[in-house]
Amino acid sequence: MSRFGMYAKFTAQSGKRDALVEILLEGADSSQSMKDCELYIINISDTEPDTVWVTEVWSNAEAHKASLTREETKMAIQRAMPLIAGVETIKMRPLGGKGL
Amino acid sequence: MSRFGMYAKFTAQSGKRDALVEILLEGADSSQSMKDCELYIINISDTEPDTVWVTEVWSNAEAHKASLTREETKMAIQRAMPLIAGVETIKMRPLGGKGL
Repeated sequence: MSRFGMYAKFTAQSGKRDALVEILLEGADSSQSMKDCELYIINISDTEPDTVWVTEVWSNAEAHKASLTREETKMAIQRAMPLIAGVETIKMRPLGGKGL
Repeated sequence: MSRFGMYAKFTAQSGKRDALVEILLEGADSSQSMKDCELYIINISDTEPDTVWVTEVWSNAEAHKASLTREETKMAIQRAMPLIAGVETIKMRPLGGKGL
């Protein structure tokens, strides 16, 4: 089965980026125990003050989908929703390289 | 000093994606010896047949810039150029998460 990769671009409500980053970093911590989650990296932009990029790699698409149904994830999404103005995603198939 | 992150979107000349992927995977191999290169992952798209995304994380922006002047990198760029129709980059500041 192929790996699953995604870049998720979150646009935070004005002034809420850092609060959103905190929730996403907590999510990354909680993903440490999920062996199917290979990468979950939170990035900010030096030019777009409301943008947060999340880089994700999962061992397969089903594992990513299943993670969204975990109670912990659903609670984090509920906390994050009021901070988010928009989300765009770019899905991809990781082939390899350094760090995988 | 902050980490430096980049998503690079390569659009291959029609039919040349896989040849471009090969060169990029070789580049990832050669980056194994560069300790300032933390991630260099090659991805393809299931929906855009000419697209290759490269996810990069470096320990700082200067290390990324310096890597482009290495003889090995310059030779790889020369081999890749005829295969590439376009490049767009998104630069970012990685804050942390799983895999860093």
